[in-house]
Amino acid sequence: MALYFIGLGLYDEKDISLRGLEAIKKCNVIYLEDYTSVLSCGVNKLEEFYGKKIILSSRELVENKAEDTILKDALEKDVAFLVVGDPMSATTHIDLRLRAEKAGIKCFVIHNASVFSAMGITGLQLYKFGKTTSIPFPEDKWHPETPYEVIKDNMKNGLHTLILLDLRPDEKKFMTVNQAIEYLLSVEEKRKEKVFSKGLFCVGCARLGSLKPCIKAGNAEDLLKEDFGKPMHCLIVPGKLHFAEEEALELFKIHK
Amino acid sequence: MALYFIGLGLYDEKDISLRGLEAIKKCNVIYLEDYTSVLSCGVNKLEEFYGKKIILSSRELVENKAEDTILKDALEKDVAFLVVGDPMSATTHIDLRLRAEKAGIKCFVIHNASVFSAMGITGLQLYKFGKTTSIPFPEDKWHPETPYEVIKDNMKNGLHTLILLDLRPDEKKFMTVNQAIEYLLSVEEKRKEKVFSKGLFCVGCARLGSLKPCIKAGNAEDLLKEDFGKPMHCLIVPGKLHFAEEEALELFKIHK
Repeated sequence: MALYFIGLGLYDEKDISLRGLEAIKKCNVIYLEDYTSVLSCGVNKLEEFYGKKIILSSRELVENKAEDTILKDALEKDVAFLVVGDPMSATTHIDLRLRAEKAGIKCFVIHNASVFSAMGITGLQLYKFGKTTSIPFPEDKWHPETPYEVIKDNMKNGLHTLILLDLRPDEKKFMTVNQAIEYLLSVEEKRKEKVFSKGLFCVGCARLGSLKPCIKAGNAEDLLKEDFGKPMHCLIVPGKLHFAEEEALELFKIHK
Repeated sequence: MALYFIGLGLYDEKDISLRGLEAIKKCNVIYLEDYTSVLSCGVNKLEEFYGKKIILSSRELVENKAEDTILKDALEKDVAFLVVGDPMSATTHIDLRLRAEKAGIKCFVIHNASVFSAMGITGLQLYKFGKTTSIPFPEDKWHPETPYEVIKDNMKNGLHTLILLDLRPDEKKFMTVNQAIEYLLSVEEKRKEKVFSKGLFCVGCARLGSLKPCIKAGNAEDLLKEDFGKPMHCLIVPGKLHFAEEEALELFKIHK
């Protein structure tokens, strides 16, 4: 009886590791967390691939009902908790692990690729990233300026900023690079601190982890006109560029 | 004809993804980079597992002789370039990719787990990490203080610091958490800026990616007395802790 936190990697059913697949095969119950990210393939595809039934886990289930479901099952059986990307890169999963350990459940973590490392494909050096931030879908009165402030602080220190974008898979809503840029430009409009202007050099990424990710580098206003295609997207604001980074980014520059 | 950059993940032969294994199977030539990290299993084990011969690639080969080896092969055949962890998290691999693209070679990247995301297993939140640093084996007159300065800057901003540790696989030398702490204490001794004192709370990690990683949290002077076992090790200096992070770190606190 144990709870296996298993990373599925970033793109489709083939991104799982052999260790992860082996663990799934021996588990009696399989949960899939479906609120922090999604794969490009559907759940049916995963069920077929594993030859197992999958229980979808909403944030509500993981955060408020795990004691009656995931944790209850893991006291009696081997349970897999599948997470897109790496299973320990979001607070919500760390918290589930803590509650499992407190309940006396043995936990194992099987890591996988995450956007936190896959962003290295842009040629930007991972060790030069500062704090990460995220942009939520703006609500009526909720339009936080935190992402703007994080970019500002990182810039001051010459560091790159990874910006994760909101998603609402149940409504089939996934924030695009374009929406993220619009969001940040609207904050700039208000704050006028010249942090995120139309001429700011940014890198937009889509479908990292696939064999053909879409990566485009250019000024904010030019990236706004680009189509990045299907989810998941993320945006990077580079800080001070090393010449090797500049050279690498040439691969992805858009031509006006 | 293409060059596949394939991440092997962090621990052993089973950490490769299905996508990665599939690519290896169809490649004619397989290189394994053996200077930025190592798996716990030997190369023989990998060769047996893949049913393919592996060519070991030193830094010298990758950085100065790739045109006569890896890149030359990739102009005519499908070539796999295997990297422990994620294949795009070190500058040396990004550079190889650039040279390949310039030579007109099609490149594909197959991501995998990296310490940059696997460190989330400590309960420290990935988005709160600042710049990453590394500690080299000290040489006669080379004892850089950069890691000390990076920790200082991150602390000022309340951010966590991941510290990667040097390795010389050909000499079977892998820096331990203990050596890293000694190094930083010696810089403190000289600088006396109260950045890395004996009472500083740190997290030492070993063998991240295995099912039984060793993670210990405590004051620097107490961690110095701990045995972290086999490579690879890394050290984390937490910044300002959120209560959820404090709670998670309880799992790993050493008892004096």
